[in-house]
Amino acid sequence: MKIAILNGPNLNLLGKREPSIYGYQSFDQFFLLLKEQFPQVSFTYFQSNHEGELIDSLHKYGFEYDGIILNAGAYTHTSIAIADAISAIESPVIEVHISNVHSRESFRSHSYIAAVCKGSISGFGLNSYTLALQSFLY
Amino acid sequence: MKIAILNGPNLNLLGKREPSIYGYQSFDQFFLLLKEQFPQVSFTYFQSNHEGELIDSLHKYGFEYDGIILNAGAYTHTSIAIADAISAIESPVIEVHISNVHSRESFRSHSYIAAVCKGSISGFGLNSYTLALQSFLY
Amino acid sequence: MKIAILNGPNLNLLGKREPSIYGYQSFDQFFLLLKEQFPQVSFTYFQSNHEGELIDSLHKYGFEYDGIILNAGAYTHTSIAIADAISAIESPVIEVHISNVHSRESFRSHSYIAAVCKGSISGFGLNSYTLALQSFLY
Amino acid sequence: MKIAILNGPNLNLLGKREPSIYGYQSFDQFFLLLKEQFPQVSFTYFQSNHEGELIDSLHKYGFEYDGIILNAGAYTHTSIAIADAISAIESPVIEVHISNVHSRESFRSHSYIAAVCKGSISGFGLNSYTLALQSFLY
Amino acid sequence: MKIAILNGPNLNLLGKREPSIYGYQSFDQFFLLLKEQFPQVSFTYFQSNHEGELIDSLHKYGFEYDGIILNAGAYTHTSIAIADAISAIESPVIEVHISNVHSRESFRSHSYIAAVCKGSISGFGLNSYTLALQSFLY
Amino acid sequence: MKIAILNGPNLNLLGKREPSIYGYQSFDQFFLLLKEQFPQVSFTYFQSNHEGELIDSLHKYGFEYDGIILNAGAYTHTSIAIADAISAIESPVIEVHISNVHSRESFRSHSYIAAVCKGSISGFGLNSYTLALQSFLY
Amino acid sequence: MKIAILNGPNLNLLGKREPSIYGYQSFDQFFLLLKEQFPQVSFTYFQSNHEGELIDSLHKYGFEYDGIILNAGAYTHTSIAIADAISAIESPVIEVHISNVHSRESFRSHSYIAAVCKGSISGFGLNSYTLALQSFLY
Amino acid sequence: MKIAILNGPNLNLLGKREPSIYGYQSFDQFFLLLKEQFPQVSFTYFQSNHEGELIDSLHKYGFEYDGIILNAGAYTHTSIAIADAISAIESPVIEVHISNVHSRESFRSHSYIAAVCKGSISGFGLNSYTLALQSFLY
Amino acid sequence: MKIAILNGPNLNLLGKREPSIYGYQSFDQFFLLLKEQFPQVSFTYFQSNHEGELIDSLHKYGFEYDGIILNAGAYTHTSIAIADAISAIESPVIEVHISNVHSRESFRSHSYIAAVCKGSISGFGLNSYTLALQSFLY
Amino acid sequence: MKIAILNGPNLNLLGKREPSIYGYQSFDQFFLLLKEQFPQVSFTYFQSNHEGELIDSLHKYGFEYDGIILNAGAYTHTSIAIADAISAIESPVIEVHISNVHSRESFRSHSYIAAVCKGSISGFGLNSYTLALQSFLY
Amino acid sequence: MKIAILNGPNLNLLGKREPSIYGYQSFDQFFLLLKEQFPQVSFTYFQSNHEGELIDSLHKYGFEYDGIILNAGAYTHTSIAIADAISAIESPVIEVHISNVHSRESFRSHSYIAAVCKGSISGFGLNSYTLALQSFLY
Amino acid sequence: MKIAILNGPNLNLLGKREPSIYGYQSFDQFFLLLKEQFPQVSFTYFQSNHEGELIDSLHKYGFEYDGIILNAGAYTHTSIAIADAISAIESPVIEVHISNVHSRESFRSHSYIAAVCKGSISGFGLNSYTLALQSFLY
Repeated sequence: MKIAILNGPNLNLLGKREPSIYGYQSFDQFFLLLKEQFPQVSFTYFQSNHEGELIDSLHKYGFEYDGIILNAGAYTHTSIAIADAISAIESPVIEVHISNVHSRESFRSHSYIAAVCKGSISGFGLNSYTLALQSFLY
Repeated sequence: MKIAILNGPNLNLLGKREPSIYGYQSFDQFFLLLKEQFPQVSFTYFQSNHEGELIDSLHKYGFEYDGIILNAGAYTHTSIAIADAISAIESPVIEVHISNVHSRESFRSHSYIAAVCKGSISGFGLNSYTLALQSFLY
Repeated sequence: MKIAILNGPNLNLLGKREPSIYGYQSFDQFFLLLKEQFPQVSFTYFQSNHEGELIDSLHKYGFEYDGIILNAGAYTHTSIAIADAISAIESPVIEVHISNVHSRESFRSHSYIAAVCKGSISGFGLNSYTLALQSFLY
Repeated sequence: MKIAILNGPNLNLLGKREPSIYGYQSFDQFFLLLKEQFPQVSFTYFQSNHEGELIDSLHKYGFEYDGIILNAGAYTHTSIAIADAISAIESPVIEVHISNVHSRESFRSHSYIAAVCKGSISGFGLNSYTLALQSFLY
Repeated sequence: MKIAILNGPNLNLLGKREPSIYGYQSFDQFFLLLKEQFPQVSFTYFQSNHEGELIDSLHKYGFEYDGIILNAGAYTHTSIAIADAISAIESPVIEVHISNVHSRESFRSHSYIAAVCKGSISGFGLNSYTLALQSFLY
Repeated sequence: MKIAILNGPNLNLLGKREPSIYGYQSFDQFFLLLKEQFPQVSFTYFQSNHEGELIDSLHKYGFEYDGIILNAGAYTHTSIAIADAISAIESPVIEVHISNVHSRESFRSHSYIAAVCKGSISGFGLNSYTLALQSFLY
Repeated sequence: MKIAILNGPNLNLLGKREPSIYGYQSFDQFFLLLKEQFPQVSFTYFQSNHEGELIDSLHKYGFEYDGIILNAGAYTHTSIAIADAISAIESPVIEVHISNVHSRESFRSHSYIAAVCKGSISGFGLNSYTLALQSFLY
Repeated sequence: MKIAILNGPNLNLLGKREPSIYGYQSFDQFFLLLKEQFPQVSFTYFQSNHEGELIDSLHKYGFEYDGIILNAGAYTHTSIAIADAISAIESPVIEVHISNVHSRESFRSHSYIAAVCKGSISGFGLNSYTLALQSFLY
Repeated sequence: MKIAILNGPNLNLLGKREPSIYGYQSFDQFFLLLKEQFPQVSFTYFQSNHEGELIDSLHKYGFEYDGIILNAGAYTHTSIAIADAISAIESPVIEVHISNVHSRESFRSHSYIAAVCKGSISGFGLNSYTLALQSFLY
Repeated sequence: MKIAILNGPNLNLLGKREPSIYGYQSFDQFFLLLKEQFPQVSFTYFQSNHEGELIDSLHKYGFEYDGIILNAGAYTHTSIAIADAISAIESPVIEVHISNVHSRESFRSHSYIAAVCKGSISGFGLNSYTLALQSFLY
Repeated sequence: MKIAILNGPNLNLLGKREPSIYGYQSFDQFFLLLKEQFPQVSFTYFQSNHEGELIDSLHKYGFEYDGIILNAGAYTHTSIAIADAISAIESPVIEVHISNVHSRESFRSHSYIAAVCKGSISGFGLNSYTLALQSFLY
Repeated sequence: MKIAILNGPNLNLLGKREPSIYGYQSFDQFFLLLKEQFPQVSFTYFQSNHEGELIDSLHKYGFEYDGIILNAGAYTHTSIAIADAISAIESPVIEVHISNVHSRESFRSHSYIAAVCKGSISGFGLNSYTLALQSFLY
């Protein structure tokens, strides 16, 4: 099973940025553990602060991978272009968020992406990714 | 570990109601499988079409159980009283939805409950419950 | 032909409550006349001030009766759960209102229920029920 | 008893226009049956695509007829002038719609006309007219 | 001096329609008095319930008359086409209303026409027309 | 003098729920003191998490008691049905809130109930009830 | 006949302020002419940039004068307190504006004051005052 | 105990202004009775129609008095500056209204002041002040 | 190939009305050139300021012509009835505008008609019609 | 004549993405035909999923080319930066869309770009580009 | 160079009011330092809690001073009258705020004043005034 | 002291783009003067039309520089991702704008960035940058 994990803007700062909201663990540390925990899965990981690069990689993985786990960060709330990319590809996409976006600023409670994803998971810290992965294994 | 699953209005009709959206399996069939799959968990299950009874049972389980999985159905979008009950209790509550609520009518994309839950999972069919359960086991 | 008439909150006070809007006749008086007028119809009547009980009875009658006449009262404007119940059942439901809801407060002009009912009749006093009944006989 | 039936824009195409919404019967066919069914009623029928002609005929019939059945079509949602005409005349006016306007585009759920009509009936196909007529006979 | 007075929908019923709002005098009675009072003015009067006829007459008088007094009635609040006609012609147009439109329903407080008229006068009963006329004589 | 005090959803948890907002005293403790302080008043107390039961008790007490003190909790902001019940009964109803609802989430600043109550008191902790009671004694 | 003219904020700068909108004539120059033109009227004139002083003078003149002509300037769009003062007094008040407020910024098209005035005149330059005066003489 | 009562715009007309809403008693008459009823309280009373003077007196009394009772009248709905003054001072402020503001025009149901006051009392006529006073004595 | 060109309100003034926006050429001059340029097309041209006449002609041409080019003018922004007529007929309709409607007043950026037309062309002056015609020839 | 065609996000998937909306032809196939059809035009073609690259190329071509045809895809609805780039350059820009954006989701009916383009063409499939090109040849 | 500094409501309490937002320094202390720092500037300072007095002083200084630095406090968000005064005068006005108004309540992010000022500076504590002054010296 | 200046989309065209709004000076010319004027500051300058590159450079400079001056151009109004980057870094960020954004289109008056910056300066032409720099030197 081939799964791509795509992280959007500012997620490269994980562990460094507002740790009271996002926690102290970097994504790299978490990713190592995830790969150990799911040896049967072939992973690809990509992070970018560029909306266009996220679209490019959705196009790249979206016709070959069994699933995509996408944390689009702030683009969740502003990018119709990423939503269109998700509609345009064939692989199912799961939307994940580390924090509970609904308990933060009101502009974070609208997601352009949610409507075109297969499902959505938020609020579980980095375990949101683990649960999304789990969902592909049922 | 003690987990309560609370289902809100119309979820008693699962398997019978709009199967193109909610699937053909009844919740009872699913619940049997869930209990087999997680023998280490002590489950309580409660369904009601009454907003007040859902509040009553959040109060009942919310100071004793390790976690609550809540599918508040349509009350998700209209009940501040259930949201207040979640804030008032001590057990962490996970919001689940069977369908992807964001790809349906626009009034279904606002959740009073999301902001006060620990996390939110939607769109995975009955597996939304399994993932929620999983989240308590990490 | 089996027809259920369901009345929502405050309709038990009919004849007693704001008679300048709702008239001086109680629903029981009216119901007797209705049964006489339509001897070929087998009626069930249920009134409740509880949203949950209205959902319960939609579930109860909604797979066996030929039609349901529903005056959801104030829940018309606030209950997505009742609307979901109407979608979930098989019997056609007619929405009725005694007064012309559109000439009253603006929050009374939105109906969650209208969109999922077969039809809607309002403003004819208790004759709104008679007309709804009539509609099942064509 | 003298009853005028007024039909607004595009209703001349009935039976021809979007039959999945409006049905296959023309209004003329229906009107013949209606007149047979209610021989005690003296009918006038008028259709126009012009907002101004509908106002003219409300003025013409509105001081002499016992009732007016009005399907204002799309003018329902945009014409304050027709609503003012209804307020200005003496005959009671019943608003009818063939389809359930509330289950269509959101701009169709606001009616300027509803607030000034005696009552409103929608969703019963051409029987909406029959029920409106019935309401005058009680 | 040539002045055209244009009256919109339902103003033909003046004296007959909702006299508590619009008064008991017909426009014809008032017009006779007006002509006596201003013998130096050459008047044209036109009333129509048709938006299109009001546009036609704005075009007809709008390049030859010294001024136009327009009571567009309910089209005030809904007709961009009449507003465009006013912009398109050369004669100055004064908007008048018999009643104080701002103390009535909220949809009556928006005027598409006000912004393109030279001035606006409302609330003085039929004297609103007299004042408008006066304004052309300064 | 007969006064009914009705408490809505989650108020059974008083003293236990979010004490930084609602304080540490339970309603039972407070109620004992209140009865001692006003021996001339005959009290009835009822709490329910069910919207329908609150309506039922407004009907029950609303034609016999000299006044009703209602803290509708979260239903304040969502229940047109409770507001209709208040309009339908004869006893004057005073709306009370323990906390200052206006300094909390914005959805708490709209009250369907305020408009149909005799008066409204909020922000004085449990003394809001005492002041409401006082108001009946003038 | 006693008439008070009240001018609101920035109208002391008339003739000096944005002459392309408000013209080159000062109010004092205009007022002299007005008094000559209407010798039968006893005038009082007051200008203030203070909302409170405008309210004070509405109270002062509002029980003794035959009419008040009020150009509330920008307070037109923001002052409920001035509107309340107009409701509280006995003299009829006419709202005037020099420019056509509707053809300027959108926040200038709402008037709190219009609904409680007898009538409203705008867009005629300083002649708006003359017309308002005229209206008291009919 | 030192208590300041501050009254905002148009409250000087009490007893004279719209008595169907505000009653027939002047504030001075009421104030005499209040002082008799609470001899242990040292009162200061101030009324102004000026937003700025209300702010000035909040500053003046707000660091020395034990409490302030404020009926800001129409400024309740428009004055962020008064709300800021309340936040800036040390004395607790109680918002009072004579009428039930929520049953009047919709622009009266928003209060900038409520969120920064200790509590709010409305709808009890002049007794709203008495109850506010009472609240300081507990 | 049979093509109907329908022009809405005020387009009869083309060349005469606001030439800085709409240009100096009359539609008749342009139409002559168009017919010369496309001799293979059989044209019908109709202009009306009446919403109803535009609907009538959509009905007339809409079942026989190969295409309709419609500049509905201001009715674009207000007429659901014309939009319904377009849905009701069989000929494809192209929406055209002479000016770039999006760079003008904000109320001109909503089109009821766009959603039911085959395509939309705006901003090219009278060439918008030529391009629309072109589109039928591919 | 030098014309640049710029395509925005997801248009690289043309022929592959949601063919029921966008058709089965790839842009490359279409582009070959276009170049054959207009041998007198010197074309440049650029596609990018990156908002920034689209701005870069508007800057690059916008001072040298005779015209730019821009299908900004989803950035149409979200990018003020692209709109600013269009305002900043000298070449006229035509907005094109393959599908009728107005008959899709409501967030697709607002275009930041339309107001600053010379004209707009949508709904003609790939012929939208051909028509835009045509417009430069008049 | 003559510069007037005008401070609006509640700024007299600086150093005393909510020091976590506004700091501990009084404006007088700061003003002394400012005068020392800029000996070449002739300063006038005025503070008022009265909207009208702020308008009066804008009129007074606005035709003679080289620049005005205005912190309108809460009137920033509510006063069209002050904005009109700024438009009416000749001196350039700089809007300053001590705190970052955009990170506070949402009603503080709209400024009526910003659009008519030359520039705006906020968030630098009392240095906002220094920077504004600096801007006049370039 | 190390200061980074970051310029967003279209600012590379400064001096070339809409000079009536943005002036005739290029940023390079200005930057030379700035470096001369502040020899004690070590400057870095970066411009990009790419939202992602602006985020990348905020990350790059945001943990090492003493301050960042950011003119995010049109991304000010649309980019939550840049706002998140500002929150995520440690260096204080000052928002600058060349023009007075509040006197332009209404969509330019909302800034996602303002709330998370230390301060904001707009309307001073290129001196907005100089003032921002100045603010770091106090």
